[in-house]
Amino acid sequence: MEKITDKNIKERPRARDININIGVFPPGNYNAITDVKGVKVGHCTLIEGEGALKPGKGPVRTGVTAIVPHEGNIFKEKLPAAAFVFNGFGKSTGLHQINEVGNLETPILLTNTLNVPLVADALIDWMITQNPEIGIQTCTVNPVVGEINDGFLNDIQGRHVKKVHVHEALKEARSGAVEEGVIGAGTGSSCMGWKGGIGTSSRLLPPELGSYTIGALALTNFDGALTIDGAPVGRELGHLPYSENTNQRICGPLFEKELGGSVMVVIATDAPLFHRGLMRVAKRAVLGLARMGFYGSNGSGDFFIAFSTAHTVPHETDKLTLRGTTVTNEALSPLFLATVEAVEEAAVNSILKATTVVGRDGNFREGIDINKVIKTIKKHRC
Amino acid sequence: MEKITDKNIKERPRARDININIGVFPPGNYNAITDVKGVKVGHCTLIEGEGALKPGKGPVRTGVTAIVPHEGNIFKEKLPAAAFVFNGFGKSTGLHQINEVGNLETPILLTNTLNVPLVADALIDWMITQNPEIGIQTCTVNPVVGEINDGFLNDIQGRHVKKVHVHEALKEARSGAVEEGVIGAGTGSSCMGWKGGIGTSSRLLPPELGSYTIGALALTNFDGALTIDGAPVGRELGHLPYSENTNQRICGPLFEKELGGSVMVVIATDAPLFHRGLMRVAKRAVLGLARMGFYGSNGSGDFFIAFSTAHTVPHETDKLTLRGTTVTNEALSPLFLATVEAVEEAAVNSILKATTVVGRDGNFREGIDINKVIKTIKKHRC
Amino acid sequence: MEKITDKNIKERPRARDININIGVFPPGNYNAITDVKGVKVGHCTLIEGEGALKPGKGPVRTGVTAIVPHEGNIFKEKLPAAAFVFNGFGKSTGLHQINEVGNLETPILLTNTLNVPLVADALIDWMITQNPEIGIQTCTVNPVVGEINDGFLNDIQGRHVKKVHVHEALKEARSGAVEEGVIGAGTGSSCMGWKGGIGTSSRLLPPELGSYTIGALALTNFDGALTIDGAPVGRELGHLPYSENTNQRICGPLFEKELGGSVMVVIATDAPLFHRGLMRVAKRAVLGLARMGFYGSNGSGDFFIAFSTAHTVPHETDKLTLRGTTVTNEALSPLFLATVEAVEEAAVNSILKATTVVGRDGNFREGIDINKVIKTIKKHRC
Amino acid sequence: MEKITDKNIKERPRARDININIGVFPPGNYNAITDVKGVKVGHCTLIEGEGALKPGKGPVRTGVTAIVPHEGNIFKEKLPAAAFVFNGFGKSTGLHQINEVGNLETPILLTNTLNVPLVADALIDWMITQNPEIGIQTCTVNPVVGEINDGFLNDIQGRHVKKVHVHEALKEARSGAVEEGVIGAGTGSSCMGWKGGIGTSSRLLPPELGSYTIGALALTNFDGALTIDGAPVGRELGHLPYSENTNQRICGPLFEKELGGSVMVVIATDAPLFHRGLMRVAKRAVLGLARMGFYGSNGSGDFFIAFSTAHTVPHETDKLTLRGTTVTNEALSPLFLATVEAVEEAAVNSILKATTVVGRDGNFREGIDINKVIKTIKKHRC
Repeated sequence: MEKITDKNIKERPRARDININIGVFPPGNYNAITDVKGVKVGHCTLIEGEGALKPGKGPVRTGVTAIVPHEGNIFKEKLPAAAFVFNGFGKSTGLHQINEVGNLETPILLTNTLNVPLVADALIDWMITQNPEIGIQTCTVNPVVGEINDGFLNDIQGRHVKKVHVHEALKEARSGAVEEGVIGAGTGSSCMGWKGGIGTSSRLLPPELGSYTIGALALTNFDGALTIDGAPVGRELGHLPYSENTNQRICGPLFEKELGGSVMVVIATDAPLFHRGLMRVAKRAVLGLARMGFYGSNGSGDFFIAFSTAHTVPHETDKLTLRGTTVTNEALSPLFLATVEAVEEAAVNSILKATTVVGRDGNFREGIDINKVIKTIKKHRC
Repeated sequence: MEKITDKNIKERPRARDININIGVFPPGNYNAITDVKGVKVGHCTLIEGEGALKPGKGPVRTGVTAIVPHEGNIFKEKLPAAAFVFNGFGKSTGLHQINEVGNLETPILLTNTLNVPLVADALIDWMITQNPEIGIQTCTVNPVVGEINDGFLNDIQGRHVKKVHVHEALKEARSGAVEEGVIGAGTGSSCMGWKGGIGTSSRLLPPELGSYTIGALALTNFDGALTIDGAPVGRELGHLPYSENTNQRICGPLFEKELGGSVMVVIATDAPLFHRGLMRVAKRAVLGLARMGFYGSNGSGDFFIAFSTAHTVPHETDKLTLRGTTVTNEALSPLFLATVEAVEEAAVNSILKATTVVGRDGNFREGIDINKVIKTIKKHRC
Repeated sequence: MEKITDKNIKERPRARDININIGVFPPGNYNAITDVKGVKVGHCTLIEGEGALKPGKGPVRTGVTAIVPHEGNIFKEKLPAAAFVFNGFGKSTGLHQINEVGNLETPILLTNTLNVPLVADALIDWMITQNPEIGIQTCTVNPVVGEINDGFLNDIQGRHVKKVHVHEALKEARSGAVEEGVIGAGTGSSCMGWKGGIGTSSRLLPPELGSYTIGALALTNFDGALTIDGAPVGRELGHLPYSENTNQRICGPLFEKELGGSVMVVIATDAPLFHRGLMRVAKRAVLGLARMGFYGSNGSGDFFIAFSTAHTVPHETDKLTLRGTTVTNEALSPLFLATVEAVEEAAVNSILKATTVVGRDGNFREGIDINKVIKTIKKHRC
Repeated sequence: MEKITDKNIKERPRARDININIGVFPPGNYNAITDVKGVKVGHCTLIEGEGALKPGKGPVRTGVTAIVPHEGNIFKEKLPAAAFVFNGFGKSTGLHQINEVGNLETPILLTNTLNVPLVADALIDWMITQNPEIGIQTCTVNPVVGEINDGFLNDIQGRHVKKVHVHEALKEARSGAVEEGVIGAGTGSSCMGWKGGIGTSSRLLPPELGSYTIGALALTNFDGALTIDGAPVGRELGHLPYSENTNQRICGPLFEKELGGSVMVVIATDAPLFHRGLMRVAKRAVLGLARMGFYGSNGSGDFFIAFSTAHTVPHETDKLTLRGTTVTNEALSPLFLATVEAVEEAAVNSILKATTVVGRDGNFREGIDINKVIKTIKKHRC
């Protein structure tokens, strides 16, 4: 394998490109959340200015990522969903209603912490444009927005993600391959001492287990000691747990003051599941993160949203009841394992694909050195 | 007692003014959430235009209410808090973090459903003005905003509550008597067939029980059959359960399509409590609502936030630990009963104090007829 | 109406017998949980000895109540279910699994606090007798047992409910009218200053709302100020909130040391609901209790279990999925209101039907004076 | 290193004996939960009979393990505690009350699934012997019992753990080194294709981080692909995910019918924490399991209990309040990481120390081949 550098961004590999094959189930066609039919992903990336932080002006290293759950009108045809909060130290919005009514009625948007309200408001606009009856002839709408704190690199006070950017991410959303790394909401994130960002992966279950697809998209911004498919990359490359959002690493087992963090994972599946089953799936996502180094540090708001595309739930119906199909409890274990695997690989991809970013005040996060990763992996998989 | 009409608004009575004395504990000085020392309440009320709804233009019947939990810098000196979600079909934001870190770091704002994001963004601005280091030298801030759906009377699509209104409510916040009824976030609400709004009440425990004060503020917008201190006012005056946000009442036990609703209750106390104790207090609030007719209809997002002013939690400290005092489990029962009583009375006050409002498209909610209430109560307390 | 005394137990009235008609929906045929087709209730009552407490010997004032959810083999054909914990200060067992797998696989048994383990063990025996493959060719079984503390009247240390009593309650279970008051698990309970016990009620929804039946069974043993359909019976008859399980009432707003308590409510319905919908139903039960005086005192473990008989879930299946029907969110509000009404009436019945019990050490709880109740109600419903 | 065989049981190594050093923090003196001062562990192991299963007779491969949280009277001097349920498909009892009142008032007992009630009843006896006023002059007691399904090896229907065994485990409890592997409640467990059992580990934080000790004890009985400090032992030795409690392994990515499982982890610390902080600690335990292969299969009931020895909470007090100290949120991250590390190592130890067990019907679980483990580790840590 030839040398891979930050210069040739396009060539930064995903995990499988360098023979990291996590788990037992095979990935889908794109090895992405978009392998679940109908799911689309769009990003809007904001990179502007450099040098000293001028709050409200920049430098800007942030963005927004949209997960559009199906091709129709999601407000009129909602999808069963569930949200699991592992560490509630975050500002995600819209999750209470998901868990109460058991469904999702907007795309899921990811952005930076302080931008959640403006992004949610832009999402309300988007929804009203498509459904002008919202709040008039019918009830309101529940915008779902997740976040990570990118304030180490980004002028987070500036809340630079505006309506136009949100709508661009939504319009740009497409199926097929998903851009990863320093993109959209992942533009300014950090992960276990390196640049983090957006990553995705998927798993296909064999016919005997239902032929279901599970896809995960992760936005990584947390503390830990990076482990790639079991190899102690963080330890070998000198990034042991330390404070998120500072540049200062710990020498030995000491911790710096913690300044934020958070991780968002979105899981899509075509397996027929409703709220209870999806909650169980969402809970397994945290296990995939744990396998690659995540330990749930105090300041990390860790939120997991799962939805199923197998049924739609009409916004309005004259019927008192709806019919549906659901995977039995007994048949869920492979879906759980597939979730763990897809999330682990999505998080690994988010780091492998992320290039170095220099942000406000010259703060920077390096994209992980792919050659060193390969070397470390080889050493531990000889 | 002379005739009370909608004309003489100032003279609309609170419950105790007409000899409705709910519960066993006495109220505080103002019989308001502000009886808890340091707590302030401010409103900004938006009433503009009339006639046919022009989405984005009006008519406007909405507002914002601010509960400022203490007189200092709440970001730097946070307060222990907890949030209980009885029915998550709502869009309140900021509650996950309250329950994870166990404290509140902003004032609590109440507004209409679709305005939550803009109000939260305005609250971030307010917090940054006071704490310019937010997101720069320290972590971000968790804005707490609750809501009700006032779309039956208000151009809710218009999201008319702007930054200036939020900041006005915050600046106007004061201790002492609290304005109730058609004010602030209660401007466009409906409750059990009448105009709802803002109501408040408090309770004082005797010295043997700790001399603690409990105050409640309710924003009422839900379905049910109004019961005032046990008297079946809803039944006698012909308002049996029916669809929130339509003008159409049910003849007999039939339900209209439901269109929203929600209730927000904020509870303050000077009793020394931390998250677990405050969660237990917050849960009791729903019992007070139940006593006056609330039954938790599907579309009603029911959120309860409790905080204690007895300790502050510093945003930053060099210490690894904090010291504090907490009421024992065994001593909590009277606080629970006091909470139930204060919430019931606050909700009753919200209806008694609310005057008739005509809103968009000529939709209207009548302020309850006080004379009929008095008559019904007398009949049942003879 | 002629004088009703404790002497003529059979003639103690239920609420409707004395014109207390709670809520807007009509009750079912028996106004009992057994109005839900297939549901059966059985009791075994243990009353033995009198005088001074000899721990392990008596006096005995306790029992066990069985709610058998359908006529088939509940282990092989489970029912969708959910359990809501309002106050976890109790020892109910089996609820975690109900909420994880979403179903119930045994009858629900109610007994006294310290007897939960022995009753659960007896239930395991019962289940193994019917399903000898448990733990051998298949997984284990999840016994569901709820409890109240009857130690004020009963030798609770003695754990007098033995296997034979559990099996008798299960064998005796039958449809039709349900015995209430001092019976089964209600033998030694206390409620708001009077003798509590077992009570039941049901509601029928009209065809437009689905023609569903909701039934509730309550085991009451909690603190509060008794309110019957709004009438302040507790206040008028001198029983204001006071310590559960002591004989000493409070003069004025002071609380005695609290010693236990708890309430269990079981809700059955033939409405097609699964876990999420049933959890929402279970949560509404606490509102019905609140309406009659319950305030969730510290020592009261308050547990609510709801199940639906509309579908069965097979213990084993070769299929990966199951099909089913569920009531939409929008159609749930009348079920919620019906739940509140049935629970309120069930709890009122539990007190009206309970006769005076003298227990250990001469401790006693009086059955409420029906004539005084009638008088108080009349006064407040003139 | 010389050859290690099942013959010389005493010489089966713990992880650190073969240079598996998990994480960044150092272990305590005994590398056991007993490194937390005052914590004691006792086991009673039941091995009897062989050959065909005769339900109720044997063969018996089960036991009970007691974690005694401090040396005093735990009922009179309770400890702050919290319980996290990751997968509620289990029969653990006593957890609702822990989370409501925030404390633990009995030792924690672990046993097999169907034995939970009898063990809980024996624990009630034990508590009454020490506190004869239970249920008489004071409220009842909340026995805490966890479990795993050992029915693959054990006559689980027989419920062979009797009062005498429970009391023996309690009496035998001692500080210092803890016996691991096939002992107590771990006698009949299975884990990821091998014999599982009891394992323990601890971590010490440096003075700058508070000098706190965290200890974990794990009872392992779950599905997954064993990973030891990152090395894919399960994959290399041919044990990929498969059905718990059957002898049949999966060839390729197919799953057998699942038959139980479960994992229990108990965490002790001397860090001053109350319920909210301990809940956060308890949640991190699942991350440690994930790192060694756990994926939360359907039938695995996964329960985590954490307690702190830093304060005691009196059963009774005349005071309305208690004073205490708690670790700040910001200082919790190292405790979280230490928890992850200790739990991972405890679970690894449970497998390394477990010898082969032949149980009912000739079913057997092999103790993992230590030499193969060493070889696999060496290969991946070259």
